Amino acid sequence: MNYSIFETEIKVRPDDIDLNNHVHSTKYLDYLLAARYEQMRSNYKMSMDEFHKQGFNWVISSTLINYKRAVKLDDKIAVRTQIDEIGGAQSKVNFWIVLKNNEKIAADGYVLYTMISLKGGRPVRIPDEIIKKYSI
Amino acid sequence: MNYSIFETEIKVRPDDIDLNNHVHSTKYLDYLLAARYEQMRSNYKMSMDEFHKQGFNWVISSTLINYKRAVKLDDKIAVRTQIDEIGGAQSKVNFWIVLKNNEKIAADGYVLYTMISLKGGRPVRIPDEIIKKYSI
Amino acid sequence: MNYSIFETEIKVRPDDIDLNNHVHSTKYLDYLLAARYEQMRSNYKMSMDEFHKQGFNWVISSTLINYKRAVKLDDKIAVRTQIDEIGGAQSKVNFWIVLKNNEKIAADGYVLYTMISLKGGRPVRIPDEIIKKYSI
Amino acid sequence: MNYSIFETEIKVRPDDIDLNNHVHSTKYLDYLLAARYEQMRSNYKMSMDEFHKQGFNWVISSTLINYKRAVKLDDKIAVRTQIDEIGGAQSKVNFWIVLKNNEKIAADGYVLYTMISLKGGRPVRIPDEIIKKYSI
Repeated sequence: MNYSIFETEIKVRPDDIDLNNHVHSTKYLDYLLAARYEQMRSNYKMSMDEFHKQGFNWVISSTLINYKRAVKLDDKIAVRTQIDEIGGAQSKVNFWIVLKNNEKIAADGYVLYTMISLKGGRPVRIPDEIIKKYSI
Repeated sequence: MNYSIFETEIKVRPDDIDLNNHVHSTKYLDYLLAARYEQMRSNYKMSMDEFHKQGFNWVISSTLINYKRAVKLDDKIAVRTQIDEIGGAQSKVNFWIVLKNNEKIAADGYVLYTMISLKGGRPVRIPDEIIKKYSI
Repeated sequence: MNYSIFETEIKVRPDDIDLNNHVHSTKYLDYLLAARYEQMRSNYKMSMDEFHKQGFNWVISSTLINYKRAVKLDDKIAVRTQIDEIGGAQSKVNFWIVLKNNEKIAADGYVLYTMISLKGGRPVRIPDEIIKKYSI
Repeated sequence: MNYSIFETEIKVRPDDIDLNNHVHSTKYLDYLLAARYEQMRSNYKMSMDEFHKQGFNWVISSTLINYKRAVKLDDKIAVRTQIDEIGGAQSKVNFWIVLKNNEKIAADGYVLYTMISLKGGRPVRIPDEIIKKYSI
């Protein structure tokens, strides 16, 4: 199956910039998480809040980031994401951080999310209804 | 009354440094909060966790910071704090961020804390027993 | 003189949220700095970059923040700023962080900026031409 | 060749904690960078500052992090690192974030560093003398 690609613009903040005058390397993952948080509500129509209400939470099991180009304070950027696989208790999401003025890739990678129960903190099989909502 | 001055060493991290090659101005308050968190347990013998267990929480009502000297990544620094006043629902804590190699002040200021109930979130009169513990 | 009030919307990010489930108290100053950075370019028509090109930099000499209401991840907020005084080497800027859905103030305060020379790092008298640009 | 494993203790700060009451997932990489920065000076006897003086800089080309256990504010943790490979313009460094009270792994992964010239920003072949210093 080919899942949709969603895009969210992120505004670089002065506190994201490090001593090399670029966005600090650990902020890329924060951008991805911010974009994904918004896409859950706007694109998949099931927000993080709704997961919490149903007794679930998402945690990150692993992440890979490839850094390709520096991002500066005045750059306009967007985060694109696409589900690669979803099933069992996990969802693998590919992402690209894009420089909007030239469409070049600043970074790419993936995040492997695991759904857990809010109570016990244990991995939980993603219900079919949720998989359906996210299979767009 | 003259309250004790307590000191906690803080290690500057690379992610605290900003585009001016100094510790970012918003990190000073993080250093103060980290120092205070530790001093609550080590010096006052009543940790934040213990406050939570008794149904209380501390929030910041206001803070003033005077920046006097830049702090660099390799600088050794410490945060000194001293209660200025404690009573009602509030505690005013003065602080100094000190460069350890020359004892010069990098920043000073105060934080005004308010004790609230964990449940309702409303300000709560600090119990005498706690005031006693903190009046050292 | 009555200086203009400028407003910049800020998007709360998941990494701004702390263990109390609110925007962390040290992020308010980051929001103010982000708003001010943008207003320098968009409203005053003299960006931080332009200051650097002319051999100047702005540093924070002191800041006061009054916390009035918690900000949550889904809140829409804006930062309003207004110059209180500008002259000598300094500019005092008042600010308000506003919850957009009810226009209530989440925090207010001021930042006292000092203009320094990029080279020596010493305070510099703000040139009349710059004061004029900022006296709107 | 078997490279040495070096360990650096990291103090968790309140501002590292997120809405799940754990160290935020993007902070692990900050801990790794802080540990590595210190080990460059203390263990390899060639600090980041020394690299800069010789006209070099290190940037991150990619990073993989596997999250295994949550880290809490009161946990004592250390970052262990070990060079996996060094040669050409790159150095791959494996790392483990360890909970000190039970020696369990909170996270592991690697960082692939690339050495660049400070001037042009281009990858640079790591000089033999540096490889020797780091081959311990």
